[in-house]
Amino acid sequence: MEKLSFASDYQEGAHPKIIERLMATNLERTAGYGLDEYCQKAKEAIKKACAISGDVWFLVGGTQTNAIVIDTFLRPYEGVISADTGHINGHEAGAIEYGGHKVLPIKHKLGKIDAKAIGDYCRDFYSDGNHEHMVHPGMVYLSQPTEYGTLYSLAELEDIRKVCDEFSMYLYIDGARLAYGFGAEENDVTLKDLGRLCDAFYIGGTKCGTLFGEALVIPKKDLIPHFFTMIKQHGALLAKGRMLGIQFLVMFEDDLYLQVGKKAVRLADKIRKALVQKGYRQAYSAPTNQIFVIVANDKLEKLAEEVVYSFWEKYDDEHTVIRLVTSWSSTDEEVERLIAIL
Amino acid sequence: MEKLSFASDYQEGAHPKIIERLMATNLERTAGYGLDEYCQKAKEAIKKACAISGDVWFLVGGTQTNAIVIDTFLRPYEGVISADTGHINGHEAGAIEYGGHKVLPIKHKLGKIDAKAIGDYCRDFYSDGNHEHMVHPGMVYLSQPTEYGTLYSLAELEDIRKVCDEFSMYLYIDGARLAYGFGAEENDVTLKDLGRLCDAFYIGGTKCGTLFGEALVIPKKDLIPHFFTMIKQHGALLAKGRMLGIQFLVMFEDDLYLQVGKKAVRLADKIRKALVQKGYRQAYSAPTNQIFVIVANDKLEKLAEEVVYSFWEKYDDEHTVIRLVTSWSSTDEEVERLIAIL
Amino acid sequence: MEKLSFASDYQEGAHPKIIERLMATNLERTAGYGLDEYCQKAKEAIKKACAISGDVWFLVGGTQTNAIVIDTFLRPYEGVISADTGHINGHEAGAIEYGGHKVLPIKHKLGKIDAKAIGDYCRDFYSDGNHEHMVHPGMVYLSQPTEYGTLYSLAELEDIRKVCDEFSMYLYIDGARLAYGFGAEENDVTLKDLGRLCDAFYIGGTKCGTLFGEALVIPKKDLIPHFFTMIKQHGALLAKGRMLGIQFLVMFEDDLYLQVGKKAVRLADKIRKALVQKGYRQAYSAPTNQIFVIVANDKLEKLAEEVVYSFWEKYDDEHTVIRLVTSWSSTDEEVERLIAIL
Amino acid sequence: MEKLSFASDYQEGAHPKIIERLMATNLERTAGYGLDEYCQKAKEAIKKACAISGDVWFLVGGTQTNAIVIDTFLRPYEGVISADTGHINGHEAGAIEYGGHKVLPIKHKLGKIDAKAIGDYCRDFYSDGNHEHMVHPGMVYLSQPTEYGTLYSLAELEDIRKVCDEFSMYLYIDGARLAYGFGAEENDVTLKDLGRLCDAFYIGGTKCGTLFGEALVIPKKDLIPHFFTMIKQHGALLAKGRMLGIQFLVMFEDDLYLQVGKKAVRLADKIRKALVQKGYRQAYSAPTNQIFVIVANDKLEKLAEEVVYSFWEKYDDEHTVIRLVTSWSSTDEEVERLIAIL
Repeated sequence: MEKLSFASDYQEGAHPKIIERLMATNLERTAGYGLDEYCQKAKEAIKKACAISGDVWFLVGGTQTNAIVIDTFLRPYEGVISADTGHINGHEAGAIEYGGHKVLPIKHKLGKIDAKAIGDYCRDFYSDGNHEHMVHPGMVYLSQPTEYGTLYSLAELEDIRKVCDEFSMYLYIDGARLAYGFGAEENDVTLKDLGRLCDAFYIGGTKCGTLFGEALVIPKKDLIPHFFTMIKQHGALLAKGRMLGIQFLVMFEDDLYLQVGKKAVRLADKIRKALVQKGYRQAYSAPTNQIFVIVANDKLEKLAEEVVYSFWEKYDDEHTVIRLVTSWSSTDEEVERLIAIL
Repeated sequence: MEKLSFASDYQEGAHPKIIERLMATNLERTAGYGLDEYCQKAKEAIKKACAISGDVWFLVGGTQTNAIVIDTFLRPYEGVISADTGHINGHEAGAIEYGGHKVLPIKHKLGKIDAKAIGDYCRDFYSDGNHEHMVHPGMVYLSQPTEYGTLYSLAELEDIRKVCDEFSMYLYIDGARLAYGFGAEENDVTLKDLGRLCDAFYIGGTKCGTLFGEALVIPKKDLIPHFFTMIKQHGALLAKGRMLGIQFLVMFEDDLYLQVGKKAVRLADKIRKALVQKGYRQAYSAPTNQIFVIVANDKLEKLAEEVVYSFWEKYDDEHTVIRLVTSWSSTDEEVERLIAIL
Repeated sequence: MEKLSFASDYQEGAHPKIIERLMATNLERTAGYGLDEYCQKAKEAIKKACAISGDVWFLVGGTQTNAIVIDTFLRPYEGVISADTGHINGHEAGAIEYGGHKVLPIKHKLGKIDAKAIGDYCRDFYSDGNHEHMVHPGMVYLSQPTEYGTLYSLAELEDIRKVCDEFSMYLYIDGARLAYGFGAEENDVTLKDLGRLCDAFYIGGTKCGTLFGEALVIPKKDLIPHFFTMIKQHGALLAKGRMLGIQFLVMFEDDLYLQVGKKAVRLADKIRKALVQKGYRQAYSAPTNQIFVIVANDKLEKLAEEVVYSFWEKYDDEHTVIRLVTSWSSTDEEVERLIAIL
Repeated sequence: MEKLSFASDYQEGAHPKIIERLMATNLERTAGYGLDEYCQKAKEAIKKACAISGDVWFLVGGTQTNAIVIDTFLRPYEGVISADTGHINGHEAGAIEYGGHKVLPIKHKLGKIDAKAIGDYCRDFYSDGNHEHMVHPGMVYLSQPTEYGTLYSLAELEDIRKVCDEFSMYLYIDGARLAYGFGAEENDVTLKDLGRLCDAFYIGGTKCGTLFGEALVIPKKDLIPHFFTMIKQHGALLAKGRMLGIQFLVMFEDDLYLQVGKKAVRLADKIRKALVQKGYRQAYSAPTNQIFVIVANDKLEKLAEEVVYSFWEKYDDEHTVIRLVTSWSSTDEEVERLIAIL
């Protein structure tokens, strides 16, 4: 029997409906660079779902999207506020600094930062007599869900929006796993809320069931001039751009994007419930598709024989936190096998 | 009847064999970021075809590949010599300068530059008493085929290699349409030659039949430290990296890459022959999959009703150069219809 | 007797009036970073001379000033049009590209480009269907005097201003040797003209009699936000900023800046007149402080025994163009000695 | 009577001996760009004082020097470890990120970081399975004295050197106030120690008595290729480069650099002693030319009538930390007046 794998949400190909559509349209000839009808239709579908009249751009990956947004929205003297655990701060190999911008880290709480901490940072900055010698905060970067699998509530995002307005900062949300945020029971944030509160956010495809691709949403029309040229300059313009449009079009038909998220979180909840019953402790209470379990070190090796998981961090001398991740492709059968093993 | 299209070689999806393989492997779960077995096998196949022991990296697009190569090979004080018509000089939206490097243009002849012109440039540079105030030439960039559809001969490449050695410059070849170069009758350059003569080159996928993707070949092992990190920093690391490996693996089975090129060039030759018979003049004598025909302005509109082509440039007040491009997906039937129309 | 030197205009220290003032004020304690009264007064003097209400900033050197202006005025998708002989294109070691911007070269005529050539470039750009894949022209860079010692007339600058307006480009003038332009008989351009026609220009100090320093003039107030921070980010903020203010204050008292230029050009004219009388040909007809003489190769060595000059370029197999430069510190006596030698 | 000023160590011009020498040499004509004899002699004097055979470069300011060193020493995938209070992390307006490099902050203790904290950071980095997705630590940046006026001991620097060797990192020391470090009683670090332990360090001029200028020392010869070109590219090459050479030549005659430091620290010690006697508390125990006194808020205004000082930070609701700084130009008389006022 094949080993179980809960290592990540980007181990397989695409949702079968996507692959089918790519196959069905394969021999059509269309304009390149995203100027085709599929991209057009997918953009309209997303704009409708977000209740915005602005712009949608399709990009290939998350780091690329973050780098382009930060580089095009910020002026050279501005940096971006992020949780110290934010993806842009630790896990993008310096892509933001490559574009010339400093990440301004704020200490996280379970992967999150709050309006008060952001406001305090800005007040300290502007009350410093030397702040013209310093990098100006120009944007707040959040991940929803966060790198810890946690979620911002609608009230929290509204408070952060207020502090962004107070200090003239953009609000940008990295939604690499957004589908799994929407799929969480405790979630009270919708695409329309993001469309209303953010200056930019992206709807993650790669980790949520596409072959690749992220849909960047900029609610205000024509906010960034020559965005197309900037995508090209960053080496991010896909020649056969319709591949992105087709995938997101499928995702936004019949609410497939929401279904994908719900299924994965339902399975993660099932695992979490079983963990509690079996007496396992969890390192963080994450409501989405990531599970952070504390496992005694002497059990790890045996577990690895049957399940592919990720090492997260050392808990204490005798325990380790491991990460289990469900995805749109996980099955009830796999989850039951996992529970039986744990 | 659908309009004919000879507008470009990236209008359709992927070669059917590629789509089939992506579908067949879709639900497998593998490691991310190109660390899977498909990438491994595809790299081995390419290394074998090039007779090198070095490294192969899969990237998503051509501009991205050019930017990463130039940025990682060159030191900050170095620039890259290119034909003034080179893709990096005019059509990459400043991606090379975004990475901090100057393109050092040399006047082209039908898209090409030669060893003498390159050598003269370098001799002038090093004999200038102020050259430490100037950008040092650190690399020669060529396209094979060029943006004009022309080809470097083996002897020409060998001469350029010599001048690169003389002035300690890297030689890098952009093979966005390499398959169509290999498919040309007059071509005498092989993958093994490129492996022997270049410090880096890429085997183009996007324009030669993959959904996307370029295979960067660096013949000398471990030449560039932490290349993986640099790919990530440039936002170019595909999470589901195996998509690239699978596509190139198919391309290097049963010489599919060569077949793709041969077919497209055979069809282009057929068009060229017909053009001659019908009394058309061609602006350049390109032996690959691009055809540059001079058409009287009063015929253009009627042609456009039946055929999608590209405007290339004004020829004189009464004539225009248009570009027709064949690809792996063009058919004999389409070519015959086109000839009948011309 | 000491060898004569006409090698350049930055071989000595500062005009004696400047050194005296630096000495007289040496022990005063003032605010740093240009926030002192000397800088304030010098800025007011320059604004008055230029008849503008905008901003003046003091920077240390010319390449630095060019890099900061281009980097702060342009958006990332924009490049700067320059004569191919422009200082930024060839002699700043890639400082402009280091900031991420492409120099868009236009073929020069005696160091100059004209409104027609600039307009043609822009029309070609905007009529190219692919121009969103290209670097947008965002600024025109001129040198006054040029690298060839030539001058733009007022009419030429007004025409270039018009083409800048037509294509929404900034006009920026590098005045490294501006004093020597003002000192030329044929000159009809004033500081007030520059204040009226340019979006930015700098009044060169280093080559015109200060120890170091350039005064950047931005006629429109607050055009570039947080310019102070951008100066700091470029490592160009002088802690003891008043050194710059004091020097320019002296330069703008009693028209010293104009006197300096006049004197040097008068001496250069004297040399040029003597050259004509002695039957020398000049490579270019430059009306400022640079002289480009064609000398038979067999005379060069002997000349070098008595005079320090610069090699400019090979003229033909038997002749060389050498450059002689006068400065504020050249004397009539030196010029007469030189004439006697020639 | 003029107000006392202890606001900073860059409020006045240059040490009188420097101004005298600049005046004496003013009309000499020499080669530009630092290729003159004064620079040559000053370099030799510094190399001798540091007991190295490598290279010395003269630059204009501290941020500029930091940016150039970090940009030329590091590869694009590398960042620089610094105390979170390090000048490059907070007060250089993003100059390091402008060059594409991330500052990797470590929590400071009185402005310092130690070998253990650095080693732990590196061990964590290399034991992280994802570290190829992260910025690699390539250099350790220290300030001597630190931004808190504190000093590293020789033993501490030797330990840090060891950890740099262990993890193949460069060690770079910012000596903006190095003279005041050498002048401290507790100091046991010499120029020769720095020459032996560092890969690069700079001997600060601007804050230690020159008009401007920093002497960058790279103990290993030719370590960084084309450093001259890199200086030019960063807009940091002074045309009249001898101004830097002359100043440092004076500084290294008769140990002037050491005398300057000793005098300022003696005066600072005198103030510190008086503060203790008068019952003031100090926020940090700094042994150099900076004094951090805790003052009751209700006394601040009156003090400001007689003394210019810097606000440092809020201490508690009723107290503030102010900074007093002595320099080479402070006098015993001024210090006595200050003590009388306190």
